[in-house]
Amino acid sequence: MNPYIQPIELEKAYRLLNHGPTVLVSAQHEDERNVMTAAWACALELVPAKVSVVLDKSTKTRKLIEASGYFILQVPTLKQIKLVQQLGAISQFNDPQKLEHCHTPLFQFEDYPLPAVEDCAAWLICELISEPHNQQTHDLFIGKVVAAYADSRVFRNGHWYYHEVSSEWKSLHHVAGGHYYTIGDPVDANKCL
Amino acid sequence: MNPYIQPIELEKAYRLLNHGPTVLVSAQHEDERNVMTAAWACALELVPAKVSVVLDKSTKTRKLIEASGYFILQVPTLKQIKLVQQLGAISQFNDPQKLEHCHTPLFQFEDYPLPAVEDCAAWLICELISEPHNQQTHDLFIGKVVAAYADSRVFRNGHWYYHEVSSEWKSLHHVAGGHYYTIGDPVDANKCL
Repeated sequence: MNPYIQPIELEKAYRLLNHGPTVLVSAQHEDERNVMTAAWACALELVPAKVSVVLDKSTKTRKLIEASGYFILQVPTLKQIKLVQQLGAISQFNDPQKLEHCHTPLFQFEDYPLPAVEDCAAWLICELISEPHNQQTHDLFIGKVVAAYADSRVFRNGHWYYHEVSSEWKSLHHVAGGHYYTIGDPVDANKCL
Repeated sequence: MNPYIQPIELEKAYRLLNHGPTVLVSAQHEDERNVMTAAWACALELVPAKVSVVLDKSTKTRKLIEASGYFILQVPTLKQIKLVQQLGAISQFNDPQKLEHCHTPLFQFEDYPLPAVEDCAAWLICELISEPHNQQTHDLFIGKVVAAYADSRVFRNGHWYYHEVSSEWKSLHHVAGGHYYTIGDPVDANKCL
């Protein structure tokens, strides 16, 4: 594994999502695996760390999560924008070779047989908290974060360092139709009071 | 009302939140009103437009929403960072004059007796969809968007124009402890394929 990837304390895992990035959602069931893009992911609780993500009924990734009970939310970077856009635009139901056609570089974290995407800035490995009403009525999936990791070049000591690395590391924030904004500059509100 | 504030089609209201900004949450019940800051707000459905927001049991705004069934999610700007930080740090339970002490400039949209914050970039007026399990177990509140507005200087024709206006208009993305990032530069993924 990339030696820059370091574990994150679970009580600080929310900081990986707090700035509202568009994420990649990974899942695997038996020998089937998939990755999709999602803009509607959010922290839900600090301790125990929980997250929510909206997964449409038309997605293959949803089916894999329902079957396996696990998923990864990962924070991609500007360098990966082509991959992020394609993983959101192509369904594995239409293209069974989606991951290969998108040239999706995958690896695994020890103990978690899930397809993690290389070169992301952060990864939250989640155990599904089964909530049939939320899943059926709202397409809303809730996960308990069981492990979290970040690339220490851009997140360490509980803080993002987007402003200290090249712009290719910046998070992506989708608006609509392939139009994204990257994350911008840091502001310390404590200095404004 | 500020003539730049224009209504947004409900099916495009998700675009006001899709880039993951930290929001201000407003509510009013009878003659009590409050505004608080929240980073855990997210779009939930396109049509009918729905949103989710996490509201801790310790907040006064939550009590007002439970009593009245309505709230506003609004997207503040860098110019408002002092207000955003204070509205998130101070509880009205501790300081009944919170809104006055934070110098919170308020107005109302016609037909909606709710305290909207002036100078934001966008406003989503929401009717609570009562879900006791989500509210009690996850502090998760779901709203149906009944009206949406944006300041046309920074959002019009379904798109943000953060890159065409001065930086004081940029959205705020909280990480932790008063440390925010502003939104950055636009990227069109369609040109990367």
